[in-house]
Amino acid sequence: MQSLRVALGERAYPIHVGAGILGDAALYAPHLGGRTAVIVSNAVVAPLYLKRVRDALAACGARAVEIMVEDGEQAKRWETIDAVIGAMLEARCDRRSVIVALGGGVVGDLAGFAAAVYQRGIPFVQVPTTLLAQVDSSVGGKTGINHALGKNMIGAFHQPLAVIADVGALGTLPQRELRAGLAEVIKHGLVLDAAFFEWLEAHIEQLLGGDPQALTHAVLRSCELKAQVVAADERESGLRAILNFGHTFGHAIEAGVGYGSWLHGEAVAAGMVMAAQLSAGAGTLDASAVARVRAILARAGLPIAGPALASERYLELMAIDKKAAAGTIRFVTLEGIGRAVLRDDFGVAAVHAAIDGCSAAPAAAR
Amino acid sequence: MQSLRVALGERAYPIHVGAGILGDAALYAPHLGGRTAVIVSNAVVAPLYLKRVRDALAACGARAVEIMVEDGEQAKRWETIDAVIGAMLEARCDRRSVIVALGGGVVGDLAGFAAAVYQRGIPFVQVPTTLLAQVDSSVGGKTGINHALGKNMIGAFHQPLAVIADVGALGTLPQRELRAGLAEVIKHGLVLDAAFFEWLEAHIEQLLGGDPQALTHAVLRSCELKAQVVAADERESGLRAILNFGHTFGHAIEAGVGYGSWLHGEAVAAGMVMAAQLSAGAGTLDASAVARVRAILARAGLPIAGPALASERYLELMAIDKKAAAGTIRFVTLEGIGRAVLRDDFGVAAVHAAIDGCSAAPAAAR
Repeated sequence: MQSLRVALGERAYPIHVGAGILGDAALYAPHLGGRTAVIVSNAVVAPLYLKRVRDALAACGARAVEIMVEDGEQAKRWETIDAVIGAMLEARCDRRSVIVALGGGVVGDLAGFAAAVYQRGIPFVQVPTTLLAQVDSSVGGKTGINHALGKNMIGAFHQPLAVIADVGALGTLPQRELRAGLAEVIKHGLVLDAAFFEWLEAHIEQLLGGDPQALTHAVLRSCELKAQVVAADERESGLRAILNFGHTFGHAIEAGVGYGSWLHGEAVAAGMVMAAQLSAGAGTLDASAVARVRAILARAGLPIAGPALASERYLELMAIDKKAAAGTIRFVTLEGIGRAVLRDDFGVAAVHAAIDGCSAAPAAAR
Repeated sequence: MQSLRVALGERAYPIHVGAGILGDAALYAPHLGGRTAVIVSNAVVAPLYLKRVRDALAACGARAVEIMVEDGEQAKRWETIDAVIGAMLEARCDRRSVIVALGGGVVGDLAGFAAAVYQRGIPFVQVPTTLLAQVDSSVGGKTGINHALGKNMIGAFHQPLAVIADVGALGTLPQRELRAGLAEVIKHGLVLDAAFFEWLEAHIEQLLGGDPQALTHAVLRSCELKAQVVAADERESGLRAILNFGHTFGHAIEAGVGYGSWLHGEAVAAGMVMAAQLSAGAGTLDASAVARVRAILARAGLPIAGPALASERYLELMAIDKKAAAGTIRFVTLEGIGRAVLRDDFGVAAVHAAIDGCSAAPAAAR
């Protein structure tokens, strides 16, 4: 097991990464000893891992309350939060109770938001069981749900007490979800660390094969990179936005095809190709770097083209994206592998060109 | 106009108190110049004050979006938040938008919570138009809504950018609501400041008569007292709980008779008499002090006895109160006028006795 600390002052917390650690009582004990632990999970994850977590919590003397939520992105709506809060009130959970989020990004976002608003905020522990959750959603404190008019439009910044990322759990993850999680790992290399990107180019097949050592390194390094950015800009007022590389396009893809039909990581993969194209069009990224972006994503089995959507539809969808500042659309672009910058000086034509260059839809006459 | 500052480090903010200040553009300009201002109000308050606020915002170059919510406690439910957020998304509000809460405690709680969760948190300004909101809910950053199983069970600590408390607005407040607001003013004297309590005993009729100078002093001193406590314990981990004097009983009254039939301040008034009785029973408060508590509340036209509820029902209702720590019920008691302490060493019999001594219901045989 390896650990790192996210440096957020009084909200600092540890991330533990290793194989087989989700049943380790010693990792829960500092946060849960003698308290009520509210395990939030779902019918896909619980049969695989709930017993081990329950036993670990019992070993540290925590009372466990178990709450099952729906599986999938559609669970990220208010009704689920209301049900979790209702079950907690019925179980007489007070402000000293701690939520334990056992599952992927949806469970973490939901359970974290329930913790953020239950009686005006209680602590929570993340036990992410998907690669996406381990390298992305469990680091940085973003929690929330979707609104009918937009994804993640309702939420809170709420940092966990600890993250317990068991790469052993990735063995039961469908291959498609493992690949989707790798999109965010690759993103971390692309925006922040050329050496890590090279390591990924050398180890992509081992990661896809589930090698525990390679996965531990990839998860730990991803978390370190993200944690550095989060520590410098907890509430996304500037720097942190570079972690949204590929996400403005990606969110438009997810919304355009209907949430749930593309996985988040798949949409981000295609979105990163578009963002790389946009960078190339602006002259800040050379063609060989764009080719490396496409190549590693293709080797990871991820889409490198968008769905059959007209580029007009992308722009329409992006205008309501929450990263839109004062009416202009901002993009994260690359000035080389490992060097991301925020820019908002693109013309509409450049954006259309980047999309059309990576889209399954024929460019409409304009 | 007088101003004070709530000392909360990077979340510090000013409270301005005076007659006729809600239309003063200079008070909004530092927070809203050039931004989108989302005015949240309701059909009772808007016809009286919206135009003045709108004109002040226009004078500082803010774009105004106006969102009307239902009047009354029943508005504090998720559907209202969802509608506010939907309207903000439709108006393309981004993370730089600022919510302006124009109204009483319900509007402040709702609009503040919408600000806390909109795109994971945006700023807000409180323009409280009721006495209760001016002296209580607008200070301290508590925001939230009710759950079917309990009042204020869902929420966030979210501090405003500024509070603009116009005592001129109290002239249009129904007398019953003015009285209910005075319950919290009296509470601040009782738990923290014997000299202020004496001042209130000397000026209660002027306050009821709407004297602007008396009201400005009462609002300002209440805010100062509350602000000191909040600054020392922002998230209610200890000290801040003394501000809940009378509230454990009061919440039980509100829930027992059905939310909305007693005003919050009315329930707190009867609850403070119960808490004073409990203190007297424990030997920490003498009979003459209890008599002063009853006398000032009676002069303010507030209830000094609970509704026709059996004391068993109170205990039942209090067990689910969010201040219940690890299964025990904690009470704020008095060790004299102006000196509150937290205690959790009461037997059930003492609690029953305190309720029965101030209740309209005959004590059941036990």
